[in-house]
Amino acid sequence: MTLATAFTEMFGVRHPIALAPMGGSAGGALAAAVSRGGGLGLLGGGSGDREWLARELPLAAECGRPWGVGFLSWAAEAGAVEQALEYGPAAVMLSFGDPAPLAARVRAAGVPLIVQVTDLEEARRALDVGADVIVAQGTESGGHGARHGRSTLPFVPVVVDLAAPVPVLAAGGIGDGRGVAAALALGAAGALIGTRFQATAEAGAEPSAVEAIVGGSGEDTERNSVLDIARGSRWPTAYTARTLGHPYLDRWRGREAELAADPQARQEYQADVARGAVPSLPVWAGEAVDLVHNVPQAADLVAVMAVQAEEALARAVRR
Amino acid sequence: MTLATAFTEMFGVRHPIALAPMGGSAGGALAAAVSRGGGLGLLGGGSGDREWLARELPLAAECGRPWGVGFLSWAAEAGAVEQALEYGPAAVMLSFGDPAPLAARVRAAGVPLIVQVTDLEEARRALDVGADVIVAQGTESGGHGARHGRSTLPFVPVVVDLAAPVPVLAAGGIGDGRGVAAALALGAAGALIGTRFQATAEAGAEPSAVEAIVGGSGEDTERNSVLDIARGSRWPTAYTARTLGHPYLDRWRGREAELAADPQARQEYQADVARGAVPSLPVWAGEAVDLVHNVPQAADLVAVMAVQAEEALARAVRR
Repeated sequence: MTLATAFTEMFGVRHPIALAPMGGSAGGALAAAVSRGGGLGLLGGGSGDREWLARELPLAAECGRPWGVGFLSWAAEAGAVEQALEYGPAAVMLSFGDPAPLAARVRAAGVPLIVQVTDLEEARRALDVGADVIVAQGTESGGHGARHGRSTLPFVPVVVDLAAPVPVLAAGGIGDGRGVAAALALGAAGALIGTRFQATAEAGAEPSAVEAIVGGSGEDTERNSVLDIARGSRWPTAYTARTLGHPYLDRWRGREAELAADPQARQEYQADVARGAVPSLPVWAGEAVDLVHNVPQAADLVAVMAVQAEEALARAVRR
Repeated sequence: MTLATAFTEMFGVRHPIALAPMGGSAGGALAAAVSRGGGLGLLGGGSGDREWLARELPLAAECGRPWGVGFLSWAAEAGAVEQALEYGPAAVMLSFGDPAPLAARVRAAGVPLIVQVTDLEEARRALDVGADVIVAQGTESGGHGARHGRSTLPFVPVVVDLAAPVPVLAAGGIGDGRGVAAALALGAAGALIGTRFQATAEAGAEPSAVEAIVGGSGEDTERNSVLDIARGSRWPTAYTARTLGHPYLDRWRGREAELAADPQARQEYQADVARGAVPSLPVWAGEAVDLVHNVPQAADLVAVMAVQAEEALARAVRR
């Protein structure tokens, strides 16, 4: 038995599992490993750093399987998308902000377009710009997401109904095959998974971050903009990031405006990073972090989650 | 095919569906209808109003099927539980606050104990007091829940792993059979459903509240304590309520402490209720409110959701 869906058929992949294109940490090696494992590896193109793309795109492309690349709609420029398209991705994914400008480039190239959405208005907009696949992202996801987000379980079926026949992937809170099975039960054509892939041999995350993820609980995570402000990131205020605990979070929670207006505090953050007093990056992690107990090869993880999903569905039906 | 689980076997019910014991609105008629439909109807005993219980308990008990009753751990007294036990419920459910004092009464009577939890510490506590079933409630649920809650999809499998072999029900964000199927895929033994049952012929909700639920979207809901404070309710601060929009919410959001310290504002609220300017009760609703489109008989709804769940699982496996 394999779990064939509209998503696996569209991309010719074996399993209904996609790697979330986590900016920076979903590099070419991880994307390639997920694709080799039978999922769809999506490179985390982020805001489209050309040098990073020049290094990582070839690594993803040489996997010999369908792979793709994700960009931030609010930050990436068309040039970065063109650069990615030169390597022949099977899909380009756009997240956060108005997808229209970059979507036009992707569609003009005849490449399948995946658009991630966090509410129903964004879902309608994604359909308007011609998305071939929609990712419905819940607030339990790690890293960036809507400040006032929806939870995955009730959000996915509503997007499925709205988007049909356009296939939907569920994102947020999925850390093992039971979550993949739940996504399919909700009517999604697959699952987009981030945090779980941070703790794999091929991820670009720092060892201390991987350790924090393996040891962390969903209850240690929270959505915040404190760390974006402290590190001088320009994320739009509509989006916060779910992270594990951090000294700056305890110090500035609830005082974001004050932090934003305090250049000295932001310099202090840089100094603290420089002297190793705080990690170089926030530890982005979703609520499914409870389900992360080891650091496998990413390709093996894809296969394991696919088998777990099949078993979870079989168990639910058989009982 | 029917979806037999540890829950259906424990209670001898046909479907893995339980009615959330919504205080006041899950009355005897609704609990009885859910039980007659093949689910487990749970009367919303709330804080244990004796007069209400005297009226509603017989209505639930006369359904001729297994039924139960839920109480608030922080508010109900042992006398109310004893009163309920006289009618022979198949289960007593305890939610919110330390379950130990009332749990002892239930267990002493030999009646199966269901305990609802909102985080892992509460889950461990529920096991300690001898829960026979644990309800893992996500933050997307309607009505009261944890102020800093977990989302259902990632929370349920962690509680399942922690509680095994004690069966777990998933609660929060489940509005149709796809959600029931997702709960089973996650390893739960069933789903506890609230908001969807508010819009049924037998529910005790006011017509205007039912109308708001049928027309509402999950994005119109939010967790708040404003309305509890305005109406003078004594809910512990650890728990907020998810409601649809309300004039007092717009007026007082973010100024809860100020509202609590302003007796005049609370009197004004009572006056506004008395003259019909605001509804007599908040419209408690979860994020699954998007999935509520009609007002069926509750027994029919149970059967429909069970068939939908079977179909959702069959579809996920077959593809």
